[in-house]
Amino acid sequence: MSRTHLRLITIIGEAVLERRLLADLPRLGATGWSLGRVDGNGSRGVRSTQWEGPNLRLETVVSHEVAERILDHLVEHYFDHFAVIAYAADVDVVRGEKYLHVDPER
Amino acid sequence: MSRTHLRLITIIGEAVLERRLLADLPRLGATGWSLGRVDGNGSRGVRSTQWEGPNLRLETVVSHEVAERILDHLVEHYFDHFAVIAYAADVDVVRGEKYLHVDPER
Amino acid sequence: MSRTHLRLITIIGEAVLERRLLADLPRLGATGWSLGRVDGNGSRGVRSTQWEGPNLRLETVVSHEVAERILDHLVEHYFDHFAVIAYAADVDVVRGEKYLHVDPER
Repeated sequence: MSRTHLRLITIIGEAVLERRLLADLPRLGATGWSLGRVDGNGSRGVRSTQWEGPNLRLETVVSHEVAERILDHLVEHYFDHFAVIAYAADVDVVRGEKYLHVDPER
Repeated sequence: MSRTHLRLITIIGEAVLERRLLADLPRLGATGWSLGRVDGNGSRGVRSTQWEGPNLRLETVVSHEVAERILDHLVEHYFDHFAVIAYAADVDVVRGEKYLHVDPER
Repeated sequence: MSRTHLRLITIIGEAVLERRLLADLPRLGATGWSLGRVDGNGSRGVRSTQWEGPNLRLETVVSHEVAERILDHLVEHYFDHFAVIAYAADVDVVRGEKYLHVDPER
């Protein structure tokens, strides 16, 4: 059965970002997401301010183009002001058409 | 120390699938799994019916052969009837023998 | 925007290991972690003793060098005595400097 090569974006950050991130994702082209809760500890940007406590862990499987758009958006809007990290990984999916948006803005 | 190249399968879907999926995995050759809870939102197949609510997030590290078997099984049995997605990624493990089944059907 | 190629280490194991693992990670060079809860079932080393119940699922994004150090440490100290697995995957991050430690022991 054929596989489609897509990108898994994982975002881990302050719970206060939940509403904004869930609104951002479809606008940026994601067709779905899953949201879990984690405890976390990490550095915040170059200032290395520590943060602790319950965080959101948000995952979305998207095209390479949408993945880049999401990462750029996160850096531009959140990285300087919130405790948040994000990473992208290669994944192979079945039924790849599930993850392809008809342009959500039209 | 030597590393073994295996596949991580992640399955995210309706909680109603839990019992069936946990029964399927060892039959298909998985030697272990971990199960978390996530909230989700996504499209269901080509009909793009939205689904929301608590989902299971099931992970298993398996051989490439078992990974393909699991993905094919999911598509054949669940993808048309349930809200479920699955993806495979490359992972490197230590003590790779933990993940190799003696044929479970014998 | 530039991406940095790092490694995501995922550790899944008995909850009793939490305090020790969270103390190990910064000493081994990790600058952050996130910790979730999963249910699990798997084999324990070559003896294939089954384990079940709530487990920790610990993630950390680190350099390739730190990733190898963490995996070696886990095998050396925990794999023979506890139910634990660990795997490493390639990830691309933005703002890669977040994940690079100034040597924590100095």
